[in-house]
Amino acid sequence: MRGSGAPSPDALFDPASVAVVGASAQPGKWGYWLAKGALAGRARRAVHLVNRRGGSLDGVPFRAGLTGLACEHVVVAVPPAHVRPVVTEGLAAGARHFTVITSGGDPAGERALAREVTARGARLLGPNCMGLVDTGSELRLSWGEFPAGAVGLVSQSGNLALEIGRLLARAGQGFSRFVSLGNQRDIDAAEALETLVTHAPTRVLAAYVEDFRDGRRLARVLRAAHAAGKPVLLLTVGRSPAAAGAAASHTGAMVSSYDTVAAVCRDSGALLLDSAGELVDTAVCLPAVRGWLPGAGRSGRGSDNAGGQTLHGQRLLANRRGQTAAGDNACGQTDVGEQALAASAGDRRHPPAGVGVPQPTPSPPTPVGQPPLTDTRCPAALRIAIVGDSGGQGALAADAFAMRGARVPKLSAATVRRVAEALPPAAGCSNPVDLAGAGEADLGSYARVAETLLGSGEADAVVLTGYFGDYASADPQRTAHECEVAGALADAAARTGRPLLVHTMARDTPALAVLRERGTPVYERIEQAATALTGAVRLAAAAATDPPPLPRSAPPAPDGGYETVRALLAAHGLRFPQAEFVPDSEEEAVAAARRVGFPVVLKAMGLAHKTEAGGVALGLGDPDAVRAALARMRASTGAARYAVEAMAAPAHAHELIVGVRHDPAFGPVALAGIGGVTAELHADTALALAPLTPARARALLVGLRHAPLLTGWRGAPPVDLESAATALCVITQVAAAHPEFTELEVNPLLVHADGALALDAHAVVRGA
Amino acid sequence: MRGSGAPSPDALFDPASVAVVGASAQPGKWGYWLAKGALAGRARRAVHLVNRRGGSLDGVPFRAGLTGLACEHVVVAVPPAHVRPVVTEGLAAGARHFTVITSGGDPAGERALAREVTARGARLLGPNCMGLVDTGSELRLSWGEFPAGAVGLVSQSGNLALEIGRLLARAGQGFSRFVSLGNQRDIDAAEALETLVTHAPTRVLAAYVEDFRDGRRLARVLRAAHAAGKPVLLLTVGRSPAAAGAAASHTGAMVSSYDTVAAVCRDSGALLLDSAGELVDTAVCLPAVRGWLPGAGRSGRGSDNAGGQTLHGQRLLANRRGQTAAGDNACGQTDVGEQALAASAGDRRHPPAGVGVPQPTPSPPTPVGQPPLTDTRCPAALRIAIVGDSGGQGALAADAFAMRGARVPKLSAATVRRVAEALPPAAGCSNPVDLAGAGEADLGSYARVAETLLGSGEADAVVLTGYFGDYASADPQRTAHECEVAGALADAAARTGRPLLVHTMARDTPALAVLRERGTPVYERIEQAATALTGAVRLAAAAATDPPPLPRSAPPAPDGGYETVRALLAAHGLRFPQAEFVPDSEEEAVAAARRVGFPVVLKAMGLAHKTEAGGVALGLGDPDAVRAALARMRASTGAARYAVEAMAAPAHAHELIVGVRHDPAFGPVALAGIGGVTAELHADTALALAPLTPARARALLVGLRHAPLLTGWRGAPPVDLESAATALCVITQVAAAHPEFTELEVNPLLVHADGALALDAHAVVRGA
Repeated sequence: MRGSGAPSPDALFDPASVAVVGASAQPGKWGYWLAKGALAGRARRAVHLVNRRGGSLDGVPFRAGLTGLACEHVVVAVPPAHVRPVVTEGLAAGARHFTVITSGGDPAGERALAREVTARGARLLGPNCMGLVDTGSELRLSWGEFPAGAVGLVSQSGNLALEIGRLLARAGQGFSRFVSLGNQRDIDAAEALETLVTHAPTRVLAAYVEDFRDGRRLARVLRAAHAAGKPVLLLTVGRSPAAAGAAASHTGAMVSSYDTVAAVCRDSGALLLDSAGELVDTAVCLPAVRGWLPGAGRSGRGSDNAGGQTLHGQRLLANRRGQTAAGDNACGQTDVGEQALAASAGDRRHPPAGVGVPQPTPSPPTPVGQPPLTDTRCPAALRIAIVGDSGGQGALAADAFAMRGARVPKLSAATVRRVAEALPPAAGCSNPVDLAGAGEADLGSYARVAETLLGSGEADAVVLTGYFGDYASADPQRTAHECEVAGALADAAARTGRPLLVHTMARDTPALAVLRERGTPVYERIEQAATALTGAVRLAAAAATDPPPLPRSAPPAPDGGYETVRALLAAHGLRFPQAEFVPDSEEEAVAAARRVGFPVVLKAMGLAHKTEAGGVALGLGDPDAVRAALARMRASTGAARYAVEAMAAPAHAHELIVGVRHDPAFGPVALAGIGGVTAELHADTALALAPLTPARARALLVGLRHAPLLTGWRGAPPVDLESAATALCVITQVAAAHPEFTELEVNPLLVHADGALALDAHAVVRGA
Repeated sequence: MRGSGAPSPDALFDPASVAVVGASAQPGKWGYWLAKGALAGRARRAVHLVNRRGGSLDGVPFRAGLTGLACEHVVVAVPPAHVRPVVTEGLAAGARHFTVITSGGDPAGERALAREVTARGARLLGPNCMGLVDTGSELRLSWGEFPAGAVGLVSQSGNLALEIGRLLARAGQGFSRFVSLGNQRDIDAAEALETLVTHAPTRVLAAYVEDFRDGRRLARVLRAAHAAGKPVLLLTVGRSPAAAGAAASHTGAMVSSYDTVAAVCRDSGALLLDSAGELVDTAVCLPAVRGWLPGAGRSGRGSDNAGGQTLHGQRLLANRRGQTAAGDNACGQTDVGEQALAASAGDRRHPPAGVGVPQPTPSPPTPVGQPPLTDTRCPAALRIAIVGDSGGQGALAADAFAMRGARVPKLSAATVRRVAEALPPAAGCSNPVDLAGAGEADLGSYARVAETLLGSGEADAVVLTGYFGDYASADPQRTAHECEVAGALADAAARTGRPLLVHTMARDTPALAVLRERGTPVYERIEQAATALTGAVRLAAAAATDPPPLPRSAPPAPDGGYETVRALLAAHGLRFPQAEFVPDSEEEAVAAARRVGFPVVLKAMGLAHKTEAGGVALGLGDPDAVRAALARMRASTGAARYAVEAMAAPAHAHELIVGVRHDPAFGPVALAGIGGVTAELHADTALALAPLTPARARALLVGLRHAPLLTGWRGAPPVDLESAATALCVITQVAAAHPEFTELEVNPLLVHADGALALDAHAVVRGA
């Protein structure tokens, strides 16, 4: 087999034959569960159980080894010392895939194992993984229950996968595939996710990742999934030092900063979540908002052309801060086409909700090289209509959605009238609608009101909150009718193409089963509904782009001092005040000051923290002042070289901080933020992968909380945002072209009505 | 009965006799459920069912009316037109309490009804309420299930009460009492809550309130409950205009601002929550933290003297921003004494966790008139140790707690060693601890590790996250052992007096039943555990105070203009720049400027927005400048009167905004915030009931996000915080003494190293 091409990743999930090495007949052992799981797929593939001590399970005798066995996929659950010989034996027997459950090997040994496998054109999952599952191909090479469904999960934590599975099952959903990554010695998170993008039964991608490996490749996979209409729900850790430390210790790798991962998700069209519960709640909501998800230009497998609906998701964002619809155009929109995410399991039986909805005219594609502005906040314009069984629940629901950025708009008089026609006089007919017992008296009220609101055009989604689903518990004779109303609610959502969500105090009743089967999200708590819907809409409206390409590396800089870094940046067009660099000489400094023009700034070179060390003197108005400053500075810093700079004070200027840091997985990451002495108090910064494009740079700036300062605050002239964005591009481009800089910072970058001016810059050189 | 004293509120919950007027034999009708519920208490009290059309239920014949019936408590569920005659008949028959379920009466009619009832010394609950329940006295005058437990609930929404009941039941808990407030025409939220403070079986008070009525009385009740060791969990609405509008429409009242309610909760020792689910999660957590709750000086009914433990709650806050323990002293600490909140239902069988824990020396009581500084954020110093079945779950748990302000500290080498001794080599023994399968192999690992961490002194609480509770589901033979370990976990928590929380993917298993019975909080989602524990600790550590008394009203001010308001404030000691007020005359203005001293500020009087109208000129350096400014101002504003003020520019000054607004329920509410032209962008303000005390004023200031600016930022001198606090007291005292001011604002208040100086002030007069 040596030298043949690597097997297709999809082959991993449906091999013609499987061998479990380390099979056991003893329940509770890994070898037992793996063997049991493998045998469950015996109708579809040959299953060999291997244990050199012999034995049998369910009538299948254990073989002594792999030699002479034709087996495509070998699962290895033997003590660490035996892993390598088993794999060697398997390779000799022609195996194409190895899933190594065993943990406890040393990193060098694991790397050697991976090299042996890949050198033979085979692939390795693990070691130290919990196996893999494909519920469609009946491949169950793991421990625990994996209910079948539409979620493809890639996880660096097996237990977390079990938790997610448990929560999905409680919501009537499950997995299409599960891949436990383990130590990622060959197959990594990006590749495992990639297999899911083109896997038709997978409608939602979910991942728990601690070590992102090739972060830019992962970002491209996230973007591809988004473009294919397959939302990605991501969990990671690292908000706390304890979690970051734990992750680093599990993975043996430097861990990416949480904020970097969040920025990558925002720009790649993935949704970063905080917990398994949030992830499942969002997955439950996604079928209901599928009409808003992007079409799948490339991988298109679905049949309902809801591509144009992307524009709806975009429209939900349009009224923020006066950005025009054109300004919000998404690169993703150039991909509008077929819709890959058709529906969740239950939806397969029903026509997709998007069908029959009038399609808005598509916007013109965004010009090449102009990525869209993005918005990471919940769409301000998502309009929710709420129907509560009581005023209290309706009002709490309104607050729950409003807290998460959605609107609960007033309804028009005509709609209020139509709601009133559907309800008895005691009901409250504005938004939130208060059924005030009308549902109890007549279950049909729920469907009538929901249908009126869904069809009103005045709400993007309708939320029921209260008691629905539990009437039959008190009076079983109402079961059929309540289920009928549940069906009518799902019908109304399908007919209008708008999501209907149900929050109810009921649990596991027949009416809820009808709702779930029809893809209607059902939640036990109103905050779950609100978090899930606002998250799903953020996903749908995301303007996903590929990560920026890294520039070719420039020759390494000699050091990271101001003089060097300034020269690099200035060569690429960044503006600095006029300056001269002089040795430790009063007369040379004064001569330089005369050429530069008074008043000047004097800076000592070669210091890490020159301001704190007394190495900066501002506003030196005459030669004596320059001489005195130099003398003081020489005494306090001992510096051998000085910058003499023109004092720059443009009117109505604002200070920005711009920096680039090297992330172990994602490479150079840009930071832009509000500067000045109170910058720490404002904590108003934003990140994105470097180098920035002008549009991304502009998006970061206008996304800052203090952005109104830049765009003309209280009658002050707006700063030249294009110059500011260009400056950000230059800085991040230079930093990305110098991988020897682990950090590069321009602080402050003065932005004003006529341009941008860097007042200081430095870099940290790797290993220096 | 006329003229006799009103019945004790407690009598409401255990009458000797009850009559249900409007009783029905037809399931689904209110009169049916009320009658059924009343009959359930027949062993304890006489129950009369009244329906003038006759009939019977469960063998009890319906009577035609109340005349001649001895009944203490009458529940009324008849059509609106019949309510008044029924009540009149009941009063004549000597009834002492009326609970009116009927809705749909007009407000004036309801008020007249309440007057009739109270004039006879009787009391009215409702109308438009869902009744009341006392699970201890078997009084069930409502609809729906009310599981028994330790939570006393007062609610303006009946359906929300059902939802809370459902969630409590799922967690193995329930209600001691439930009071549905309805339209609060007599008994209001404050009074209903007051009955719970002294009700022994009620260990936790919960409330949903939209209309706070006498807000200051309510605040006093919250504070009394806190002092009695009975936490109050409050829900309200109004974060969104839709919810505020809905609440106003339900209650027919002006609704208090959400921020005001939040401030009152913070200062009264109540916890404001966002949803029914959060409320229940916190209630579930409270038994575990009871050792941290204040003792019950006045109402003391419990037996475990854990008063000193309050100090522990305080200590949890102590290391924030360098505040000293003395500075954090709580008024509540003067009340330390007996512990009212003994335990939840399950705890009654076990010794309280607090017993046997060494008691820290109590701090000296806070001097009278010096309320404590408060902190509304989660204690920065709450230390959590986490034990996860997998590294992923442990790390996610660490982030969940860290996001909510808790710490997940490093463990000492000695503790790591002790953890390692309890676990196999593959386990991760730092914090978060990663069992890495050790629990599966040996269930006793859970208890050993938890006990080690609980007893280490390095964590205030321990959180288990993962799989515990579900081993017996896979292997029923493990049930007894798993239950035993659950008992050992609860024992470890009890022995150490520290909370142990369990997050698990299991649901409703025998081991979880053991944990719940022993008062160990169990959660389905890690975020629930984190929100509940950090909230419970915030409650325990709250420095609750009574609301400030309102000053005697001063004679009404003629208007709200600068001249008037300045004079009022200056008379109470607030400093302003020297100023003179002159008519529209250049020469008088110049003469005033000479007396005041150049440069001066000229301000036009009598304008609502004088800056925007061109009515302010700064830095006028000579007589000509004054004349020119006056001429311009006359032309642009037409003002007839002007202020000529000394130009004040103290060094290192910061601008504050100080305002007082009238809330319909809570009266005058003070606002303090960071001012200046970017104030709106910072949105850094804080509220508290007016008038402020010096300590409260100081606490508001140091609690601002920008507080470091005031306390000496980057080498600048700190402002004179005592003068600033005194200025806030004067402003809020004057505003509170002038109820004709619906609003009073001083903006800016310049605070600097040597004092505080008001540069402008105005008020809005009611109805003006």
